[in-house]
Amino acid sequence: MTSTAATTPTLTGQMIIAGEFVTGSGAAIHAIDPATEVRLDPAYAYGDATDVVAATTAAAAAFGAYRATDSETRAVFLETIAANIEAGADIIIERACAESGLPVGRITGEVARTTGQLRLFAAVLREGSWHGARVDRALPDRTPAPRADIRQRKVPLGPVAVFGASNFPLAFSVAGGDTASALAAGCPVIVKAHDAHPGTSELVGRAITDAVAATGMPAGTFSLLYGYGPELGTALVTDPRIKAVGFTGSRSGGTALVRAAAGRPEPIPVYAEMSSINPVYPLPGALAARAQDLGREFIGSLTLGSGQFCTNPGLVIAVDGPDLERFVSAAAAALATTTPTTMLTPNIAGAYAAGVAELSREATTEARGQDDPSASTVCRGALFSIDADTFLASETLQQEVFGASSLIVKCRDDAQLADVTEALEGQLTATVHTGPSDLGAARDLLARLELKAGRILFNGWPTGVEVGHAMVHGGPYPSTSDSRTTSVGSLAIERFLRPVAYQDVPADLLPAPIADGNPEHLWRRIDGQLERD
Amino acid sequence: MTSTAATTPTLTGQMIIAGEFVTGSGAAIHAIDPATEVRLDPAYAYGDATDVVAATTAAAAAFGAYRATDSETRAVFLETIAANIEAGADIIIERACAESGLPVGRITGEVARTTGQLRLFAAVLREGSWHGARVDRALPDRTPAPRADIRQRKVPLGPVAVFGASNFPLAFSVAGGDTASALAAGCPVIVKAHDAHPGTSELVGRAITDAVAATGMPAGTFSLLYGYGPELGTALVTDPRIKAVGFTGSRSGGTALVRAAAGRPEPIPVYAEMSSINPVYPLPGALAARAQDLGREFIGSLTLGSGQFCTNPGLVIAVDGPDLERFVSAAAAALATTTPTTMLTPNIAGAYAAGVAELSREATTEARGQDDPSASTVCRGALFSIDADTFLASETLQQEVFGASSLIVKCRDDAQLADVTEALEGQLTATVHTGPSDLGAARDLLARLELKAGRILFNGWPTGVEVGHAMVHGGPYPSTSDSRTTSVGSLAIERFLRPVAYQDVPADLLPAPIADGNPEHLWRRIDGQLERD
Repeated sequence: MTSTAATTPTLTGQMIIAGEFVTGSGAAIHAIDPATEVRLDPAYAYGDATDVVAATTAAAAAFGAYRATDSETRAVFLETIAANIEAGADIIIERACAESGLPVGRITGEVARTTGQLRLFAAVLREGSWHGARVDRALPDRTPAPRADIRQRKVPLGPVAVFGASNFPLAFSVAGGDTASALAAGCPVIVKAHDAHPGTSELVGRAITDAVAATGMPAGTFSLLYGYGPELGTALVTDPRIKAVGFTGSRSGGTALVRAAAGRPEPIPVYAEMSSINPVYPLPGALAARAQDLGREFIGSLTLGSGQFCTNPGLVIAVDGPDLERFVSAAAAALATTTPTTMLTPNIAGAYAAGVAELSREATTEARGQDDPSASTVCRGALFSIDADTFLASETLQQEVFGASSLIVKCRDDAQLADVTEALEGQLTATVHTGPSDLGAARDLLARLELKAGRILFNGWPTGVEVGHAMVHGGPYPSTSDSRTTSVGSLAIERFLRPVAYQDVPADLLPAPIADGNPEHLWRRIDGQLERD
Repeated sequence: MTSTAATTPTLTGQMIIAGEFVTGSGAAIHAIDPATEVRLDPAYAYGDATDVVAATTAAAAAFGAYRATDSETRAVFLETIAANIEAGADIIIERACAESGLPVGRITGEVARTTGQLRLFAAVLREGSWHGARVDRALPDRTPAPRADIRQRKVPLGPVAVFGASNFPLAFSVAGGDTASALAAGCPVIVKAHDAHPGTSELVGRAITDAVAATGMPAGTFSLLYGYGPELGTALVTDPRIKAVGFTGSRSGGTALVRAAAGRPEPIPVYAEMSSINPVYPLPGALAARAQDLGREFIGSLTLGSGQFCTNPGLVIAVDGPDLERFVSAAAAALATTTPTTMLTPNIAGAYAAGVAELSREATTEARGQDDPSASTVCRGALFSIDADTFLASETLQQEVFGASSLIVKCRDDAQLADVTEALEGQLTATVHTGPSDLGAARDLLARLELKAGRILFNGWPTGVEVGHAMVHGGPYPSTSDSRTTSVGSLAIERFLRPVAYQDVPADLLPAPIADGNPEHLWRRIDGQLERD
């Protein structure tokens, strides 16, 4: 393990451990431009257990000082990261496009989303409700026993391990939603970069590292590692200094991390966003009124970004009949005209092709998108249909096929549509399209979907996740490993906090959020009632 | 499995499954009066997997209608349970005293705590913040893309399994904190009664069952089972209809449930409150000013209720010296005069004696309470001391000895006291005693203890857990299996909820908490700001 200083904007191929650039001792990987399959320099050498210990030790050492910073200080830190990313946006966008095959417009939007997330959490910090401040005032004269003065606030869990996602090289990677919410909560962050975009990861890692230095945060507040998931990733999650994990990726990867975390002497929470096929319900009135428009819009959502979204509509559930056939025909016609698009990595394209091949054996192929036999990292859209009886009897048809593939489940009647809904696994989203006559059916469906999905949307499409206060990007297992939270939106900060009660703590020692006189002018729950005293 | 109707207040020895009295088909147990070791009638026959399926099926069937009840309806239901318990208090108290060996005053207080908890959650329901209502208003003119209307509220997880605790036959048993918070959240509850107090469990189970009927809740909202933990308990936790678990008991019992829940096809959260030794820090200034008073008060807290509290002060950590010796001498003298008290069960008394015997081999015995050789279910207080070097090197001295036993750890200096603190496992509570000169040391200690304990108290004693809004009865592993929450106090309702986002849902379909016009007059977060519109 050698260490050098960064002197130029040229990519170094190095990890960043608590502000130091460190060359890994393991196997070296290169990013691949999936559009050309050209290897991109530089090489990124994998780190090992020594690097994990260096990063976690630095994070643990930084934790005390970092969590002691006030909300304003951390807000400025997050805003500085955002500003640094914007200052380097041209280089970041160029590299991210080359590493992901995603178009400039999409990556430009992702830069905005990433900086927007950081600024959202800066606003959350300044608003202050994240402290969860509560005060139950002493009742010295209460009988039969007096009541002590008891106050409550939330404290950060400790250093957090974040695993970058393949499909959002910025918004769910090094400075993405998990990192922003954990840093906001007061937790140092160690990111394991995704192999698909090491250069983008380095550039964003530098933006954070520069912000750490510029705003005077402890160096161990942030580290960036490269490594082989089953080795370095497992070492990170099982390191006793790590206190929580954020992950976006496959079901197998997520469940492996959950298992590793549960097997620790001290188990820790893992927030894994894993797998969802996002059912869409075009109800009879909607189909009667606009089957063809819905079919075309559906294909637009399905093929967006080569279908590489967690919220991609991979399932359509409807009552069979002529209106559904019109929907299917319009969708099939629209899909047939789509041109092939580049997927994120050759591996992802291979898994997509295999998933589509399996579906084509089990279900009826309604349409395929256009092909490009000269390219291998390519997504060719796929639309299948199946009757609900077969779907209900299948063990495999609910498996996510990551990419622009969807399955239409044709139900006999409303009762069978309800059966299919009850048989669904947990989902990130569920979408309902309605006409004026569908209100009763939609009410029944909504009650069922509340127990199946984290977000329910009407008369729209699930791709496109708004970053705000009311958003939930989460849902029952296996869409995530923990349905009680979200990985997008301001509520995400709560994943990295726990409550502490302070009983009769002397006024001079009380943390500001629960101090007498409410010096931070917070909304606080006083004897159970919200006040801003 | 036979079923009969309840006609008299006489104990039936039967389980209650969705309002039906059911006789188990398994081995029969009796409660034992631990003071006399007399077997108490009637026999309680264990249930089996068939009973588990009957209860969970009824709970799943009840869930839809139960969660659809409004806050006021559920508040009245909880208040009716409380009123029913009060109406039967004389019989409940008599039976609970006989089954637990706890004195009438203690059990009378526990009745009040139990009904108080139920009424606290009724107030939480009426206040309404538990919905977590958020509204991000649509921005149709936003560029580059409009923003949809997105709203958020929390929904209940589903049927909850609750395991009654041995040491609180009322407040942490059939109608205890876990049941009250889960019912408040909208979750049906299935309680596995603790073998130590089956009669008390039946009486309280009837109070709930009567309230279910009187307030028109679905019958499956509540069931009460008896059974062998490793069989019936595991069957309950691994039943796919169960969506969360509340448990108070031993570390081995809790970790077994956590493991069973994690191994399910759909893992579920387990809230297990397991093990804590609750360190007490008499700082130098406090010892200088009032060593002897503190020593006497400490023994009062230690021996309360035979030390059978989760928050019992099982560890004292202090810098060695003459003032600490005065504390130890006063404590030893006070302990030596204590009379032996009855423990909850012969098993608990046996485990206590074994734990004390092991401590006596590893540490110096400072004092023992008085003995009663004629009784076997007896607690004889025990006070040990050890030097911090030995404590730090030991793998076993942090293990909880459930009962009135405590260990004094004598530190060389402040630095070693900090080392001992860092070496502690997670705790429910930590207590600091200060004099005027201790403020600086206390500030440093408080920052360390925030990461080790769920509740930090100054100049008091940890036994006695106030039920309120700011209380945290929880803490880092192994004090609980999930540090992000509490099992006492109003925040406990959040354990059984998850957020759902509603995007562009038609106004007629929006649930009342997030409906236009705020019909429930709730505090809601509108575009990130708390409002009561």
